[in-house]
Amino acid sequence: MNETKHVHIVTFIKDKIKKGEWTIGSRLPSQRQLALLFEVNRSTIVTALEELTAEGLIQGKTGVATVVINNTWTLLEGNVPSTWNKNIKLGGHQASSVLVQEINEAESDPRLIQLSKGELAPDLFPLQQMKEVLHRVSDQLTSFGYEEPKGNRQLREAVSVHLKKRGINASPSSILIVSGALQALHLISVGLLQQGSTVYVEKPSYVYSLAVFQSAGVQLKGLPIDREGLSLEALQKVPFRPGHSVLYTNPTYHNPTSSLMSLSRRKTLRAVCEEKQLPMIEDDVYRDLWLDEPPPPALKARDTTGSMLYLGSFSKSLSAGLRIGWVVGPDAVIDRLADLKMQSDYGSSSLSQYAATEWLTSGLYEEHLTTIREALIYRRTLFVQALETYLAPYATWTVPTGGFFIWIQLHQAIDARSLFSQAKEAGLLLNPGSIYAEPSGSYIRLSYAYASHSELQEGIRRLALIIKTAIEK
Amino acid sequence: MNETKHVHIVTFIKDKIKKGEWTIGSRLPSQRQLALLFEVNRSTIVTALEELTAEGLIQGKTGVATVVINNTWTLLEGNVPSTWNKNIKLGGHQASSVLVQEINEAESDPRLIQLSKGELAPDLFPLQQMKEVLHRVSDQLTSFGYEEPKGNRQLREAVSVHLKKRGINASPSSILIVSGALQALHLISVGLLQQGSTVYVEKPSYVYSLAVFQSAGVQLKGLPIDREGLSLEALQKVPFRPGHSVLYTNPTYHNPTSSLMSLSRRKTLRAVCEEKQLPMIEDDVYRDLWLDEPPPPALKARDTTGSMLYLGSFSKSLSAGLRIGWVVGPDAVIDRLADLKMQSDYGSSSLSQYAATEWLTSGLYEEHLTTIREALIYRRTLFVQALETYLAPYATWTVPTGGFFIWIQLHQAIDARSLFSQAKEAGLLLNPGSIYAEPSGSYIRLSYAYASHSELQEGIRRLALIIKTAIEK
Ligand SMILES: Cc1ncc(COP(=O)(O)O)c(C=O)c1O
Ligand SMILES: Cc1ncc(COP(=O)(O)O)c(C=O)c1O
Repeated sequence: MNETKHVHIVTFIKDKIKKGEWTIGSRLPSQRQLALLFEVNRSTIVTALEELTAEGLIQGKTGVATVVINNTWTLLEGNVPSTWNKNIKLGGHQASSVLVQEINEAESDPRLIQLSKGELAPDLFPLQQMKEVLHRVSDQLTSFGYEEPKGNRQLREAVSVHLKKRGINASPSSILIVSGALQALHLISVGLLQQGSTVYVEKPSYVYSLAVFQSAGVQLKGLPIDREGLSLEALQKVPFRPGHSVLYTNPTYHNPTSSLMSLSRRKTLRAVCEEKQLPMIEDDVYRDLWLDEPPPPALKARDTTGSMLYLGSFSKSLSAGLRIGWVVGPDAVIDRLADLKMQSDYGSSSLSQYAATEWLTSGLYEEHLTTIREALIYRRTLFVQALETYLAPYATWTVPTGGFFIWIQLHQAIDARSLFSQAKEAGLLLNPGSIYAEPSGSYIRLSYAYASHSELQEGIRRLALIIKTAIEK
Repeated sequence: MNETKHVHIVTFIKDKIKKGEWTIGSRLPSQRQLALLFEVNRSTIVTALEELTAEGLIQGKTGVATVVINNTWTLLEGNVPSTWNKNIKLGGHQASSVLVQEINEAESDPRLIQLSKGELAPDLFPLQQMKEVLHRVSDQLTSFGYEEPKGNRQLREAVSVHLKKRGINASPSSILIVSGALQALHLISVGLLQQGSTVYVEKPSYVYSLAVFQSAGVQLKGLPIDREGLSLEALQKVPFRPGHSVLYTNPTYHNPTSSLMSLSRRKTLRAVCEEKQLPMIEDDVYRDLWLDEPPPPALKARDTTGSMLYLGSFSKSLSAGLRIGWVVGPDAVIDRLADLKMQSDYGSSSLSQYAATEWLTSGLYEEHLTTIREALIYRRTLFVQALETYLAPYATWTVPTGGFFIWIQLHQAIDARSLFSQAKEAGLLLNPGSIYAEPSGSYIRLSYAYASHSELQEGIRRLALIIKTAIEK
């Protein structure tokens, strides 16, 4: 039997059903007709139909025609929007959420120039070192099963040492290993925040492109951000309900603006939050990607009241595929988050945790940072040159001092959807500011970390053309 | 500075605070006093205090005494029970949930004889093969980052082939890779079930020991189970609200009873569910651990209406530390669960997914199954002999034909808590039936997979003593 043929047939029929071309209740062509159509044996058709039957898309009894059927899950979903569902639907940013899904899908299309992806290019991946790390992990391997609730002990010790170098005192018991910083946000939102409470965030912010807070029934309220970070003027005016408000901030190479909060702003922010008893989530996943000089210490490094949760991750600086990040906070809070983590997935992959430990303890991680820093500086220079060459007539930007995003302000607002679509048609993937809740429509986020050197330049050339055409219309 | 000393001091002070010995607002001893107390330099004390300060447990200003302080997160939690929190508290089985936490903690105590752990013993871990797998993964490695929403393509293809061998037709697009079957339950509960809907489950059932459904505001309703599996008589009497009910079943080597649903029961169950339009979650994580003969085909293998979600995992048969499992279902449902998975952790570890792929495609997994099957058969024999020797006067049991649990019925009910505590004092960890919502108090779940051969025997000897004493009282 031809395996490929059979998969081809299944896909073909699924497509028909998905697109609504073959509606519920409609009859499929007979097995003979299908065999003729696809030029295969009837046995291949039978296998394909069996598979579709098992998946509940079709139903056939001997002697009766095979028909497309409804299925009880669709029914369940149709009748019963889950809370999650409901929250997503009721949440304010449905349109952008569709756009985000579209971007996510397009990100696996190798034909597109990826100025969108928030991760390092394959050629910045430390392949030799990762292989070496895996060999070492393999050589030192002992049997492994379910891990401790807070994560592998050695890894937590290694993260503790790692954080110490960055000025943060955190004992292993105050660290929870998570499958990326996103999971930390997820656990915080379901575990610590009450429905109806408010998360204050920079606006624009990466979290607007997620459903994580909104899904937990928590409201986002945006505060303006400037070159020095979150605007404190706005924050000071907010009337907080104690116990119902949290601040989420991404002060170091902020996604999407790349803004870096100044030292003095950090001090004042901490003072304001302490005074207002406003707990804070500090998302610091870009810290290690400084390009010109190390950033000011994390807010957490001067946390004297235990009112901050601190998030880190290997996703941006090493590999997102490891799915290893950490949350640091007071023991009681970390205990609670660890319990929730156990309830949702029984802990992160042991293999990833071993590899992460080896990266940290061997010193390979710090070495790697030096290498990618150089590569990113080079990419930034290339990219900024391309911007100056092609985009200067249409836009302005600030050259980031860390991370890998450039936040472009167009002189003239262009509808986000149509800009996105036109760019995609021109083979270019970019993130309109709207998905981060930037309302004016005059911003886009570009990354110089992923596309190749020549693509970075070609991408900007095409983008300039698109903008020019849009404006002239 | 002495690193160990400093950790010691931090732990000491945390303990004092945790136990409430040093209450909020109370003054710490002075730095000088602490230095004397611990026989260290003041600099060591300063480091320890800095760490505690950063974690928000204490607060000190120069010139003023250091005091134990409240922290805003505790405040937040205290004022604001999160939905999760609330659900757990309102859920019916608070007591068992405390017991479950206690068991989880005790499971990392190497001094205890573990008749409790639901995983294979370290000496059943295929260390050499796992090392070999990691070497191969390393040799074939290319750069990796965020994975596709449904999980690594090669792994989904390998799982598809694996399931085919077990009679289940599932194309890669109808498979979602998850971080263990528990995560699948979590995603289903938040993504497909509405608050207020009902999940019908066998009673007793493993899911009663979890908070996963209850946390999503979903109610569990227990149905009796006998030697052939879920009782259909009870099921048939239930008046379902279409779109508001789901059946969760664990028909193959059921946790905790090890009962195996017969072929005819499977047929009728499927028919009943189809007639009642009752969607089903089939949890099949123990299938590969058959000991005497292969079990009847999965319910999913004959799913003609797409109304079943099917769960599998490597946790029981290979290693729980991989955190790799899968859900199979209609494409539309899998798409939705994949989207939720992306929203909660951006996918499972690439390394684990590569290792899992290699285990399946190399044939090493099937070979490994043969080996552990033999080992488990031997352990079962040993264990049953010990039961007959020591426990026959006090209890009855059925010898399982697969999996690794024996469900013991005591002739006389003994309070679950006190049985658990007495066993623990005697160096023995076991799971009282109560945590699976078995109400009579006359059952306990024992595992012959984890403890060493001699411990298996010694454990039963001690258990018999405890029971004897309890009865005589
Ligand atoms: C600011 C910020 N936080 C968190 C994340 C999530 O990263 P991960 O879950 O891969 O660690 C990202 C990734 O896009 C990010 O930009
Ligand atoms: C019946 C059953 N389902 C699911 C699980 C969860 O397994 P995992 O998440 O490790 O795959 C277990 C583990 O105890 C189980 O017994």
